[in-house]
Amino acid sequence: MDRMKRLAILGSTGSVGRQTLEVVQRHPDRCRVVGLAAGSNFDLIAQQVAEFQPTRVAFPRPVPGAERVSMEELASAPDVDLVVVATVGKAGLTATLAAIAAGKPIAMANKEIMVMAGSLVMAAARQHGVTVLPVDSALSAVAQCLAGEGQNVEQIILTCTGTPYSWRAPAALRAVSREELLRQTHGIMGRKLSIDSATLMREGMQVIEARWLFDVPFERISVVVHPENAVRALVRFVDGTVKAVISQPSTRLALQYALSYPERWGLPALPPLDLTALGPVSFEPLDEAKYPCFRLATEAGYRGDTYPAVLNAADEMAVLLFLDQQIGFQEIPRVVEAVLNRHQPVHHPTLEDILQADQWARDFTPQQVPE
Amino acid sequence: MDRMKRLAILGSTGSVGRQTLEVVQRHPDRCRVVGLAAGSNFDLIAQQVAEFQPTRVAFPRPVPGAERVSMEELASAPDVDLVVVATVGKAGLTATLAAIAAGKPIAMANKEIMVMAGSLVMAAARQHGVTVLPVDSALSAVAQCLAGEGQNVEQIILTCTGTPYSWRAPAALRAVSREELLRQTHGIMGRKLSIDSATLMREGMQVIEARWLFDVPFERISVVVHPENAVRALVRFVDGTVKAVISQPSTRLALQYALSYPERWGLPALPPLDLTALGPVSFEPLDEAKYPCFRLATEAGYRGDTYPAVLNAADEMAVLLFLDQQIGFQEIPRVVEAVLNRHQPVHHPTLEDILQADQWARDFTPQQVPE
Repeated sequence: MDRMKRLAILGSTGSVGRQTLEVVQRHPDRCRVVGLAAGSNFDLIAQQVAEFQPTRVAFPRPVPGAERVSMEELASAPDVDLVVVATVGKAGLTATLAAIAAGKPIAMANKEIMVMAGSLVMAAARQHGVTVLPVDSALSAVAQCLAGEGQNVEQIILTCTGTPYSWRAPAALRAVSREELLRQTHGIMGRKLSIDSATLMREGMQVIEARWLFDVPFERISVVVHPENAVRALVRFVDGTVKAVISQPSTRLALQYALSYPERWGLPALPPLDLTALGPVSFEPLDEAKYPCFRLATEAGYRGDTYPAVLNAADEMAVLLFLDQQIGFQEIPRVVEAVLNRHQPVHHPTLEDILQADQWARDFTPQQVPE
Repeated sequence: MDRMKRLAILGSTGSVGRQTLEVVQRHPDRCRVVGLAAGSNFDLIAQQVAEFQPTRVAFPRPVPGAERVSMEELASAPDVDLVVVATVGKAGLTATLAAIAAGKPIAMANKEIMVMAGSLVMAAARQHGVTVLPVDSALSAVAQCLAGEGQNVEQIILTCTGTPYSWRAPAALRAVSREELLRQTHGIMGRKLSIDSATLMREGMQVIEARWLFDVPFERISVVVHPENAVRALVRFVDGTVKAVISQPSTRLALQYALSYPERWGLPALPPLDLTALGPVSFEPLDEAKYPCFRLATEAGYRGDTYPAVLNAADEMAVLLFLDQQIGFQEIPRVVEAVLNRHQPVHHPTLEDILQADQWARDFTPQQVPE
């Protein structure tokens, strides 16, 4: 596996896209860039093209130094060995499906694609014998636990650190301000992710992603609270053995694993974890009743069809409404639930059905703001 | 991998041998016995032959119902898919090498063979492309952490629960009685293993086994104290990620993994581990200075040549002298060290050299008893 990996990066000007290019810089003997795609930041992609010299670029207008192609062509070109999907939202969904149809392994950093259309994406991946590795700290940990194992999973156990915010203390919650929640943001996590972490919508969506990524039914996926934030995920197998992955909660690490798989590359930027300095670690059951967004997500996942797409769009809109001070923190789940309750699901949805459900939810959610 | 596995079991009347037959009984659709070998218990092996109907048997005298062959023939017969080495001491060493030369995967439950001759055994295994899976709770956990991974190991971390006995409290130690130590024995662990656990010779020998089984230099193998006894072993990879295996400390589980590999089979006899009932778990550095037997073992492993064989034999004799009340608990490491210091090592030893060093140490150790 010492051959140079040739990468196509969809969303190269975003946070994960830029981190991907940093990994390429650190490992010039192991991977190089043959394609870059982005949506808006011309100055940055022009600079990236000049530096990494890809053959092709997908951008709304021509970028000097590379052939201009569509994102689908870029992702399925014959000389691409791995496609990094680092786009946001629906962008990159059809290009991902084109890459899979062309037999390209995927490093998937786009959560929305997996929540909306995980079933479609993974069905295509199985059909074409393609590996989809998640670029997410917890989901990458699950993939790592499953490496070298057959289909003998009893339970996938995701960890979360818990949050001080719950639905059941209305007086306290009314006072939860945007500023307070966004102060919790650290590093590259965006504002949306920060709110989704506070509501545990993020963990609920991870359960949906895990269901499709690892082809394990919802009953076999659970979440535990793990305040020490050291163990990323665990998998229990049919013989009772549990495998755990302990690492820094780093997207960059998950990204590099997806790029280096089935090998691993050194990562000098991260200090090694000192087990004996870790102190005691513990796991507690998640009180799901306290986190309505978590429940809504897992219910939408369990119902399937177009519900996860509606969940994803309604949550995005509800969080925007919260950030825009149109609704309070505790109204986020109420708004999302109202939209889900009004949705007319499409069974065995096509890509088109999913995109329509997404659009319907985006249009419908703002109407749910209480008077 | 749904094909029936045909097993040859060396040492079928011992503890691990009997457990192997229990696994066969539980999974009659997945494995069956084609050969049994034992050394002394005629009644039991006759009963085993009647029940499991192997084609061949290796025993000092004929056993009705099966063809009598040598242990080497039994282990290398064409219809054998996996050889379980559940013998004690040197017994089974040449049969193991014969099995490896015939390309048979090995489930290795004999620690002495791996300590004495791990270098020879694993060199042969690499030469013949044979997998050797350890039947030992901690070492099996390491093998499981390494499944699906390349050669990107930074550190193998074995855990031990620690022991209340140390060399540095002479007054207290003089009073450590055989009865007290053997009260610590639980389940199938023998008297020898119980003493080796108290001195941490067991962990030192595990380090030697790990060095050969996983082809990782001694500098990359360490032991941490883990009082909760939940995590069996951990492996840190070059990217800083740590994989851990959490399971019951069960030889039977390790045995079944070796039999089912690369699959896993259900194990209804063991209750599943409840993570949230686990309570906090912790890891502390091992104070090696407090455990002279641990230091002696790792030093002997590091020196290599015939030293590990001498360590193994000298420790066995020293423990026997302790059980026979000829020496005190704290004299065990002193006796072993005296024997190691007098040993004239043979470089790049052959099997014959190793067996001679073993015999020399067995003869020489009793002479080290203080007047």
